[in-house]
Amino acid sequence: MLETHLILADSEVELVPQPIQGHPSVVSYAKRRGKKPSKVLLDASFHHSAIRVKYPSEVNRRGRPDIAYFFLNVALESPLNRGGYLRVYVHTRNNEVIFISPSTRIPKAYHRFIGLIEHLFNNGNVPDSKNPLLWIENLRLDSLVQKKICPDRTIVLHPRGKKIRLKELFEDVSGKIAVIIGGFPEGDYISNIENISDEIVSIYPEELVSWVVAYEIISEIERRLGIM
Amino acid sequence: MLETHLILADSEVELVPQPIQGHPSVVSYAKRRGKKPSKVLLDASFHHSAIRVKYPSEVNRRGRPDIAYFFLNVALESPLNRGGYLRVYVHTRNNEVIFISPSTRIPKAYHRFIGLIEHLFNNGNVPDSKNPLLWIENLRLDSLVQKKICPDRTIVLHPRGKKIRLKELFEDVSGKIAVIIGGFPEGDYISNIENISDEIVSIYPEELVSWVVAYEIISEIERRLGIM
Repeated sequence: MLETHLILADSEVELVPQPIQGHPSVVSYAKRRGKKPSKVLLDASFHHSAIRVKYPSEVNRRGRPDIAYFFLNVALESPLNRGGYLRVYVHTRNNEVIFISPSTRIPKAYHRFIGLIEHLFNNGNVPDSKNPLLWIENLRLDSLVQKKICPDRTIVLHPRGKKIRLKELFEDVSGKIAVIIGGFPEGDYISNIENISDEIVSIYPEELVSWVVAYEIISEIERRLGIM
Repeated sequence: MLETHLILADSEVELVPQPIQGHPSVVSYAKRRGKKPSKVLLDASFHHSAIRVKYPSEVNRRGRPDIAYFFLNVALESPLNRGGYLRVYVHTRNNEVIFISPSTRIPKAYHRFIGLIEHLFNNGNVPDSKNPLLWIENLRLDSLVQKKICPDRTIVLHPRGKKIRLKELFEDVSGKIAVIIGGFPEGDYISNIENISDEIVSIYPEELVSWVVAYEIISEIERRLGIM
């Protein structure tokens, strides 16, 4: 029996950090949504100028919850997940991990997704702590992999990893496999991936967006399992 | 040389129709965005109550530009498109077709995508008529297929179509293939699909969201072509 654990790692998902909570773009955005600046998600498409002021070297990287949104709406709707073979996780740049029950229907409307993740950051779980569909814990990537998942094999996707074809990568699909995909638009992993990976691989000559990497892996494993 | 033409058909993408332009949910939404109610896209996540008043039988169907947004961000970022083997089209419930240049970078931010499509509906092309990346024409689905694409083979995906495995469906990947996927969340095609299809098929025992159907087809053809 195969279990695939798909991790979006070092995702650029965070509440607006303290140093830019007073920036006009953040203040007006939070006010428009009837929330405090400290309680809203950083979103580059609204807060780009604030990010540029305080984090100039990361201006093209931070505040990208849309990547997690695409990732989850691709992965959770897949036949692999429907068949019960998939677990997904969103690990953040601040070493939090969002756990997601496989039966969760992620909101298709972007503003509802953002509201959901903000609720999660501010309350710890959704909809409640008794039967949560999503919950969040402070956890490093290595702890998630080595203490929570304990996989037989851990694969990290990296544009500069060893070139390999997907069919070779998943020649053997048994046991528990953890697959780590970067949840950021450019640059490198923040987490140490050397310590936890059995293989660091690249599946395509160019960089691909995170949700395309996710579906290439999902669809390959679906074919190996005969689901598709 | 294979060409895959992927069509999102009968997509629920339209400007707010005249009968509900005066509904409070539409008026306040348009005002907040500094636009006229007649110039904004119908969006169920904002205009659900307006849709219910005038179109009660279609309340769970209309106003779903998010489906086209996921579809385009999945398809255009794929290795199949990067390799030059893919053309994508968004056909709407009102028999318009949005043509998209394969090199287009679709906005990742949802509100920017909505603004782009509104510009397209109100102006006919983006960014301009000389070198458009996106343009829109009044065109029925059958005319798109039979007059514009002229494929060797036309496949329609339908949950009640003939059950088939993807690997059998694409045993032969040569020539020009048109693949039609429904761009609506429930119900049936509005367009007549019998007249234009060589095969009406179902690839999975349950209904799948449009963008998952898209990536299953894309990834299958990528494997047949040896791209992945």
